[in-house]
Amino acid sequence: MSNPTAAMLVIGDEILSGRTRDANMHYLAQEFTKHGVDLREVRVVSDDRAAIVDALNALRSAYDVVVTSGGIGPTHDDITADCVAEAFGAHIDVRDDAYALLDAHYKSQGKEFNTARQRMARIPDGATLIDNPVSIAPGFTMENVHVMAGVPSVFQAMVASVLPTLTGGAPLLSQTLRVQRGEGDIAEPLGQFARDYSDLQVGSYPYQQDGVYGSNVVVRGADAARLDAAMVALRALFPEA
Amino acid sequence: MSNPTAAMLVIGDEILSGRTRDANMHYLAQEFTKHGVDLREVRVVSDDRAAIVDALNALRSAYDVVVTSGGIGPTHDDITADCVAEAFGAHIDVRDDAYALLDAHYKSQGKEFNTARQRMARIPDGATLIDNPVSIAPGFTMENVHVMAGVPSVFQAMVASVLPTLTGGAPLLSQTLRVQRGEGDIAEPLGQFARDYSDLQVGSYPYQQDGVYGSNVVVRGADAARLDAAMVALRALFPEA
Repeated sequence: MSNPTAAMLVIGDEILSGRTRDANMHYLAQEFTKHGVDLREVRVVSDDRAAIVDALNALRSAYDVVVTSGGIGPTHDDITADCVAEAFGAHIDVRDDAYALLDAHYKSQGKEFNTARQRMARIPDGATLIDNPVSIAPGFTMENVHVMAGVPSVFQAMVASVLPTLTGGAPLLSQTLRVQRGEGDIAEPLGQFARDYSDLQVGSYPYQQDGVYGSNVVVRGADAARLDAAMVALRALFPEA
Repeated sequence: MSNPTAAMLVIGDEILSGRTRDANMHYLAQEFTKHGVDLREVRVVSDDRAAIVDALNALRSAYDVVVTSGGIGPTHDDITADCVAEAFGAHIDVRDDAYALLDAHYKSQGKEFNTARQRMARIPDGATLIDNPVSIAPGFTMENVHVMAGVPSVFQAMVASVLPTLTGGAPLLSQTLRVQRGEGDIAEPLGQFARDYSDLQVGSYPYQQDGVYGSNVVVRGADAARLDAAMVALRALFPEA
């Protein structure tokens, strides 16, 4: 079997205006090369419905795999999910599975799950959710199009979930433990944990909330039971989490 | 008059494989925003003739201005100039004006102007050369398409030449003095010179040749006589050049 061909669609005015320097293209190019996916084309378009839909339709018919980044946040200009639905002629609304994930997340944070945030639960019918271990709001896969966040740490986590499926492997599952200590504090015990579970991928994503530093520790693997066992050990290591 | 719309076409396998991280897109986005040119789309394609010609034709008919970067060097995979000729249905060959520039340059360097390097003098009929004060090999403008080098320092110098023409101004002329001293050595007198000629743009591009550090000092302005006067003063300042 020859390598799958791929294209990327970067969505966002902030890239084209030069306010933000895109980091996801270079990251995806390196990951795809490492895993034998042949990235053939990248397009960057603005937050414009016709531009996004046209680019999506051109790329999804020309390549085996399309990855998008950006435009799935809570503000009015985050229109990627609706554009994907339009490109596929699919119905879209707030979907129960995504709603439940976000609702639980905001409850645990003591934050309001308001109408703006509910935009992030808009998922086209027929799509499969992509795990977001960093900030919960999911991406999704619709046929050969994988819709991911623009924030680099979230984009990278989503690429890690999806990559194995593109090369014929099983998707990676992930579980997250939110530890209310900075990365410098947990690096040593976490390093030992990663060596003990070297068959799994162990990552750490820092966050800051109300002035306090914390770390989302994400463990990934294809075997659910093995992942559960690792999480039991991880919780014992950081009982304050 | 509303702002001109623009697109960029980045050409090169090395970007899509992740070996090189593109810097030109972010640079152009910032410059265009500063000067009121509305960058609407960027495409990155590989060194593939059909991919380049198709993208060129799509972009040049959809936007007022197209800037390309990459694929104008001396190796077999540098096919941008030939693809532009094909997109416009124009004849292309080694052209006398570009040949003369490069021939003089390599003679002054004591280097052979071999067949590979002569590729860089392939310019479509009807195109206007874009000045390359850094490494001589020119870019070119063909109708609304501006063909520039991929090397960031050269790309930036070419953008500086062309930008004023896109917003209704006169093209910037440039003259270069090659000073065989490192930038740290010349920074102080050059700073004074730039203040004395504050109506001109004064830039410095370091180079290294045979282990010796040097600086290409580039002076830009729209008025040829004023530029000539500045070059006389600059040569007096660095008589060893």
